[in-house]
Amino acid sequence: MKLVTLDDIAAAARRIDSQIVRTPLLPAGWGDADRPLWLKPENLQPIGAFKIRGAFNALARLDPDVRARGVVAYSSGNHAQAVAYAAAAFRVAAHIVMPEETPGVKVQATRDHGAQVVLCGAGQREAVAAELVERTRGVLVPPFDHPDVIAGQGTVGLEIAQDLPEVASVFVPISGGGLASGVGTAIRALCPRAKIFGVEPELAADTAESLSVGHRVDWPVAQRNRTIADGLRSTPSELTFAHLQRVLDDVITVTEDEIRSAVRQLVLRAHLVAEPSGAVALPGYRKAAAPPGPAVVIVSGGNIEPALLAAVLSGGQ
Amino acid sequence: MKLVTLDDIAAAARRIDSQIVRTPLLPAGWGDADRPLWLKPENLQPIGAFKIRGAFNALARLDPDVRARGVVAYSSGNHAQAVAYAAAAFRVAAHIVMPEETPGVKVQATRDHGAQVVLCGAGQREAVAAELVERTRGVLVPPFDHPDVIAGQGTVGLEIAQDLPEVASVFVPISGGGLASGVGTAIRALCPRAKIFGVEPELAADTAESLSVGHRVDWPVAQRNRTIADGLRSTPSELTFAHLQRVLDDVITVTEDEIRSAVRQLVLRAHLVAEPSGAVALPGYRKAAAPPGPAVVIVSGGNIEPALLAAVLSGGQ
Repeated sequence: MKLVTLDDIAAAARRIDSQIVRTPLLPAGWGDADRPLWLKPENLQPIGAFKIRGAFNALARLDPDVRARGVVAYSSGNHAQAVAYAAAAFRVAAHIVMPEETPGVKVQATRDHGAQVVLCGAGQREAVAAELVERTRGVLVPPFDHPDVIAGQGTVGLEIAQDLPEVASVFVPISGGGLASGVGTAIRALCPRAKIFGVEPELAADTAESLSVGHRVDWPVAQRNRTIADGLRSTPSELTFAHLQRVLDDVITVTEDEIRSAVRQLVLRAHLVAEPSGAVALPGYRKAAAPPGPAVVIVSGGNIEPALLAAVLSGGQ
Repeated sequence: MKLVTLDDIAAAARRIDSQIVRTPLLPAGWGDADRPLWLKPENLQPIGAFKIRGAFNALARLDPDVRARGVVAYSSGNHAQAVAYAAAAFRVAAHIVMPEETPGVKVQATRDHGAQVVLCGAGQREAVAAELVERTRGVLVPPFDHPDVIAGQGTVGLEIAQDLPEVASVFVPISGGGLASGVGTAIRALCPRAKIFGVEPELAADTAESLSVGHRVDWPVAQRNRTIADGLRSTPSELTFAHLQRVLDDVITVTEDEIRSAVRQLVLRAHLVAEPSGAVALPGYRKAAAPPGPAVVIVSGGNIEPALLAAVLSGGQ
């Protein structure tokens, strides 16, 4: 299997440069003395998540004649908005398949970027997307299982290596594994001594188990769906799993309480709004036996419901 | 009266460069079509506010022998933490005078930076600070009424002009006027066609009135204290007022509801935590008769109490 390379990631960076925010590394004075903490706030991207990087790179890589036919994606989360946003920038049509139970605000946000939203029943989204691809002759943009998407997400790692070459450890959320695959590839190549830690909810720790046994272990969707971190309920593909096996030093699992506490801490100490899925790497940093030296925590997304954020701030559920 | 110049601000930028975050301009897709909106998130600075820029520049400008005697400041807000943080970086002592009624979390945050906090009764803080200056032979660092502080805050404007030379309007909160004086000076010099708008709460609109009558008008403290924007209750000094007269095109006043709504909008759409004082420039942008072209809103600070933020998110008070 051909894995994404540093060259692929560097090319992606040049391609998406003008469309994304080059997020700064923010010094967090409340890190450990021997492991100064830096935050990479990808929640500050347009659409509020790193997903925009992979979506832009995937669309930019298409032949213009092919791209003109439009794109299709299925997602109830940040990938939906990322593809809709990137399609609008390229002035091509986007059809986004979303489950009927998707919160109205997310459907509306996707429509606001000009996409056609197609609602579907539970478990139907891949079939509906396939029909749309056939009907529109558009291109399916997968959320993580594609080299161009992985290379786009990897630009986060490239920026970390450029801004903090002495980084000793990097903490990255894992779901489908696109972000961790790309970031890990960039950091391995540019900062070979740095440790790379994936972070997962205990309630969706399929990747931790898969890596420990050496092959992909399937956790039922219902089991993964228990975590509050709704963006971390996917499971790696063969392609991302191959990357993760190669680039990760370890996977750290965190509790639901630790995730809520991280959302609260990021608001109060870093003035960043993170969704639960976007905040998991912070408790990962706290729990890891990482080497001394600067640590970077990737805050991967910020699309949280206001009621949930209010509850977390009030110490409730 | 000698006003701060672009050269002063450029020198300040070189001085504080390694100590502050060079905040990016964040594109806000929800701006007006003819006035694309960019946010300058100064809430992402260490200590959560732009104040760190002026404090660092003021300390950096001191003769090392003088600085070694330590610094003194009086503030119940972000200036306290800024001076404490900068003093710690220079490894000199800081005494910060705070009113007895200051919320415990702010006192603690100031102590966490290593400062000695001296609590005092209402209306006593200037006298207590003067005593401390005499006793410690330290240097008083004022929150806005000093050229070095104004020049430090002006680096926000310098960065805006560098990153977005075509900026057509800039919106900046006004309290004592240090930020607006510095930013206005930089933008006037580098982007002479841009309009510069100060923004104030209606309930503390002393600067709007002062500029309209051409001299400083004194609003009683009790009157200014009505606004939720607790960082915007100061009033310009002669020095800052002279700058404001020269650099501002207009002052826009905003309601308390508009301020709360801006805090909420910044959380949900920009994933930024702003305190009420830090959010006022956003409704200023909405209300201004500004020329077409890119607009920049300065989000000046993020230190909000969690209970207040939860209430704003829940639509309450």
